[in-house]
Amino acid sequence: MAMEGYRGFLALLLSALLVGFLSVIFTLIWVLHYREGLGWDGTALEFNWHPVLVVTGFVFILGIAIIVYRLPWTWKCSKLLMKSIHAGLNTVAAILAIISLVAVFDFHNAKKIPNMYSLHSWVGLTAVILYILQLLLGFFVFLLPWAPLSVRALLMPIHVYSGLFIFGTVIAAVLMGLTEKLIFALKSPSYSSLPPEGVFTNTLGLLILVFGALIFWIVTRPQWKRPKEPNSVLLQPNGGAPEGVESSMAMNFGNVDKSDSELNNEAAARKRNITLDEAGQRSTM
Amino acid sequence: MAMEGYRGFLALLLSALLVGFLSVIFTLIWVLHYREGLGWDGTALEFNWHPVLVVTGFVFILGIAIIVYRLPWTWKCSKLLMKSIHAGLNTVAAILAIISLVAVFDFHNAKKIPNMYSLHSWVGLTAVILYILQLLLGFFVFLLPWAPLSVRALLMPIHVYSGLFIFGTVIAAVLMGLTEKLIFALKSPSYSSLPPEGVFTNTLGLLILVFGALIFWIVTRPQWKRPKEPNSVLLQPNGGAPEGVESSMAMNFGNVDKSDSELNNEAAARKRNITLDEAGQRSTM
Repeated sequence: MAMEGYRGFLALLLSALLVGFLSVIFTLIWVLHYREGLGWDGTALEFNWHPVLVVTGFVFILGIAIIVYRLPWTWKCSKLLMKSIHAGLNTVAAILAIISLVAVFDFHNAKKIPNMYSLHSWVGLTAVILYILQLLLGFFVFLLPWAPLSVRALLMPIHVYSGLFIFGTVIAAVLMGLTEKLIFALKSPSYSSLPPEGVFTNTLGLLILVFGALIFWIVTRPQWKRPKEPNSVLLQPNGGAPEGVESSMAMNFGNVDKSDSELNNEAAARKRNITLDEAGQRSTM
Repeated sequence: MAMEGYRGFLALLLSALLVGFLSVIFTLIWVLHYREGLGWDGTALEFNWHPVLVVTGFVFILGIAIIVYRLPWTWKCSKLLMKSIHAGLNTVAAILAIISLVAVFDFHNAKKIPNMYSLHSWVGLTAVILYILQLLLGFFVFLLPWAPLSVRALLMPIHVYSGLFIFGTVIAAVLMGLTEKLIFALKSPSYSSLPPEGVFTNTLGLLILVFGALIFWIVTRPQWKRPKEPNSVLLQPNGGAPEGVESSMAMNFGNVDKSDSELNNEAAARKRNITLDEAGQRSTM
């Protein structure tokens, strides 16, 4: 299926993949080359799993999960398959995030370092808890077939908003975590003398910020949204959307006026067919 | 003019104002009660203007500037007036952000502390530079009457996206700044023993995050968007929007399908009138 502005999409997608991949590689280089390496023994080697797993799962995989519906090559795939992929990626990300917490708590307990005192830990744990709730809500409401359309429609804008809010909060928490670690770890030479590790890890922070910016741009372009199913069951053949379904589109970042300009073309004809599975399909933009 | 879900809007607006106001008050209590107070003498008193001005200008005032078009009481006001208020609030925020930078550079220079080594400083300065560019772009393209519609339409999605991205980046930078300052300043008792100042300032960080969440929700609800001018000049009376104008709506967070359900009512009739000043009006949601 043709996508409007396909080349731009491709360029931004490749940029996001590159920057996201670089962020993971930079994190690995950081802990393997500049820090102590990786292990699971209650020492700094165990702590080092924390940034690796967070950047891999909670930043990169979560970012890809957010935009997976927008890949035009997947538009031929069934909605259920795409929802399963979206849910699967988010489940992997959540598992990595939880293991990353175990690593840091283990390390703190072994070293008698207090847990949960820093703003980083407050914000980060909040993000993990919200993410697990978001995952459960997505699973029971949007993936399993039992939730009525009205419930899906009601929770849709919250699901989409929460996903982006959690992603942004995770990035903020990662930047705070890098800040903390650099201040604690860089003593001689100190962080303030900006040694190579400081430059390198600051650059990692910027890469993660740029990754977030690219995902946020890709997911908020209305022209790159997965089209609705052309062969889906009509709920309101006259184009009148029930209020709940309408509000389910609230956070799709689409353009109100686009449908005006499209009244005479096929896309608009499809768009007017509010479908039974609409709420599910649009749930992740 | 009636607003859909007015009570919900009012509740969220009051919450945002309360949380934003509390953030400023908490910042003042932090520097006046827990820290050294305020002054302009190259000491910590001068540094303390940095968080106060950032939270007041770059968080609270910028947040209000983002949602100012959505206040239904202003929908009777001319677009030019609202654009001027939006630009004015952002100018005040930018001036406060710049003074906040002067305060911290002055303090660093007086104390022989290096500048621009931390990830906080990299992200924060990036946000300030992007914000000044955003302000200049907004002034010359959307406020002054000279930019052609095509240019406004082209830059509109970027302006709206950038505004939200800068706001999010500022919040991330503030949370990093609080983290840095608490680690540097809390020595006996240390931050890790979570003294009252730690709890208080962590809470300030959460308040700022909640303020960001509320602004992000308010600005992304399509039903709370300022309606188009009913008496504006028709550009395309048949409802066909030129491509540029259409793409200018790209980031208005509206719902494509809403217009379908509104085809027979007054709002839809207005919506179909693509106006000459459309690009300007929708520029800031």
